Amino acid sequence: MDRRDFLRTGAALGVLGIAGRRWVGAGTSATDDATLWLNWNENPMGLSPTARDAALQAVARANRYPDASRAELATAVAKLHGVGPENVVLGCGSTQILRSIVASQAAAGGVLVLAEPTFEAMARYQRPFGLEVERVPLDSRYAHDLARMKQLAGQGPAVVYICNPNNPTATLTPSAEIDTWIREAPESVLFAIDEAYFEYVEDQAYWSAAKWILERPNVVVTRTFSKIYGMAGLRLGYALAQKKTARLLREFLSADNANGVALAAAKAALADGELLSKSRKINRQAKGIATACLDELGIGYLPSHGNFLMHEIRGDLEAYIQRMREHNIRVGRPFSPMLEFNRLSLGLPNEMERWVDTLRGFRAQGWV
Amino acid sequence: MDRRDFLRTGAALGVLGIAGRRWVGAGTSATDDATLWLNWNENPMGLSPTARDAALQAVARANRYPDASRAELATAVAKLHGVGPENVVLGCGSTQILRSIVASQAAAGGVLVLAEPTFEAMARYQRPFGLEVERVPLDSRYAHDLARMKQLAGQGPAVVYICNPNNPTATLTPSAEIDTWIREAPESVLFAIDEAYFEYVEDQAYWSAAKWILERPNVVVTRTFSKIYGMAGLRLGYALAQKKTARLLREFLSADNANGVALAAAKAALADGELLSKSRKINRQAKGIATACLDELGIGYLPSHGNFLMHEIRGDLEAYIQRMREHNIRVGRPFSPMLEFNRLSLGLPNEMERWVDTLRGFRAQGWV
Repeated sequence: MDRRDFLRTGAALGVLGIAGRRWVGAGTSATDDATLWLNWNENPMGLSPTARDAALQAVARANRYPDASRAELATAVAKLHGVGPENVVLGCGSTQILRSIVASQAAAGGVLVLAEPTFEAMARYQRPFGLEVERVPLDSRYAHDLARMKQLAGQGPAVVYICNPNNPTATLTPSAEIDTWIREAPESVLFAIDEAYFEYVEDQAYWSAAKWILERPNVVVTRTFSKIYGMAGLRLGYALAQKKTARLLREFLSADNANGVALAAAKAALADGELLSKSRKINRQAKGIATACLDELGIGYLPSHGNFLMHEIRGDLEAYIQRMREHNIRVGRPFSPMLEFNRLSLGLPNEMERWVDTLRGFRAQGWV
Repeated sequence: MDRRDFLRTGAALGVLGIAGRRWVGAGTSATDDATLWLNWNENPMGLSPTARDAALQAVARANRYPDASRAELATAVAKLHGVGPENVVLGCGSTQILRSIVASQAAAGGVLVLAEPTFEAMARYQRPFGLEVERVPLDSRYAHDLARMKQLAGQGPAVVYICNPNNPTATLTPSAEIDTWIREAPESVLFAIDEAYFEYVEDQAYWSAAKWILERPNVVVTRTFSKIYGMAGLRLGYALAQKKTARLLREFLSADNANGVALAAAKAALADGELLSKSRKINRQAKGIATACLDELGIGYLPSHGNFLMHEIRGDLEAYIQRMREHNIRVGRPFSPMLEFNRLSLGLPNEMERWVDTLRGFRAQGWV
């Protein structure tokens, strides 16, 4: 299956994914001209009501170091994953933990192997350490080309970064294939599995890599409260790892890196039994609206397993981004080398209707 | 002047520092048995009203990355110091910046020179980098022994950490003496001047080292919103440095390390014309209550230039800490090698009255 065929398949899956259009019909802001933020893969729903209340209450304790809250959240996260608090490393966003992974491997040297395109943080963080960076193009499925990555990582020392689902493509790398490699890999190959969008995935071929931390010291799984939990502005993420690996990561982290408002909101969010299903439902609706329009206009896109999608752009990408900006819609930045695509973060259904209307207008102008 | 004489002078200064006892008389919580947190050098007043309102409003935007707020705060901080935003490095607390300073010097190797005792973060952060650590006892004034530190730093490479006022002693190192060394030092000696308690100081022999960033690339000054600004739980600090030094520090920091609630609160706090004077006034009152009692009981203490003070303990320090805990008062932990002292964070005046009553009770028991 070549990329073109895959795009068509993705389009078809997109159509099937439409659900609950009535909710969208109730949307009112299609004519609203406030800026639409469809560029940072945020959860447009905001904090869940219980998380918001917890955050507001925590403001009253803003002058106190949140040591007790930190311990409570680590315990809650550990319980969620069936591990101990010693396996949980909190960070100022999962990005701080990604940095500590790279920093912790700098002394060993070696190679950083990652996809192209993928989330840029790891490549940026290695800069001061001068690791050798090997960028491996996504395969024809827009999945990580694990065979090629494995070849480049060799027997290590290596850090292998796998963002799954991948950002900016929202595509999956089958978990069974990752498992096979981890099972065979020497400990000198460290796997950093970034599951920032884990909770959005509804695909049987996908599961978390977190089970590996029970067996392997060379697997670190990162999660975040920035995406489905709606807390991007509060900065809280975590890693799961074996105790000795977790301890090593902490050596490269600053102290007190979780703030009290985020800790309180996260604890409430984890206890909110409806947050995930509600967010998934709205995301599915938004995705359906976007993909229906793309199908209608004959614009290809990748099947999305996150709260964003990559769709084709005909003509100049920067011009498209600028024109959307002139309509008060911020869409994703260029992700080299996929400069014939734009990353679209999924907003609320009524926000997607506004994007759809704008895109239709662009088509009428012959711009897309 | 030996240490004993200095202690007496400190006691005398403490008595002179008493002000506004009437406010204290209005305190009501001396009989309240809620836990008193006199152990983390927090501002007991909490957020200022304007900062609190800004924080509450920012919770509504918790799902959005706070890029705009970050730029605004960097600009406000730059304006405060008469520098440009390129000279400002934000961090998840100033502790994250202290870590980046150590990390940025790891490749050069060399020595980390610091006082004993001082704030522990730097010594902890160098662990994975294996710098040579030289701990220099405070001098007879409980100031940094700059002559000895200079000898150990030599021509570098060296990181010199000067916490001024020093934590845990709350004592000053005269700024003119620091200036003299900085003026003479080669660029291979990097000065990390930690001014976490800067805003509490009311002493003519003290000024910020921030002026040096205009001339020298080897000076970094750190500040925090955790102390007088009452935001310890929100995690926000910053560094001031020359542009190229700031850029180097950012290479060793994670992205998005300032959260939206902290940024909003900090911006409001900086604009609050009364915050500093009110906090200083309450702190002065609290200090007066504590030192009056220490004088009355004949317990020595160091002159305090922060929101905490070091006083002598007769008998076992751990026993004292435990007994205070049994009275629901948390006081400072042991700071080796000053194990004949306890660090007392200053609470609200009525909270200090409760500590005073408890301490008097201890004296009646023959414990102090």
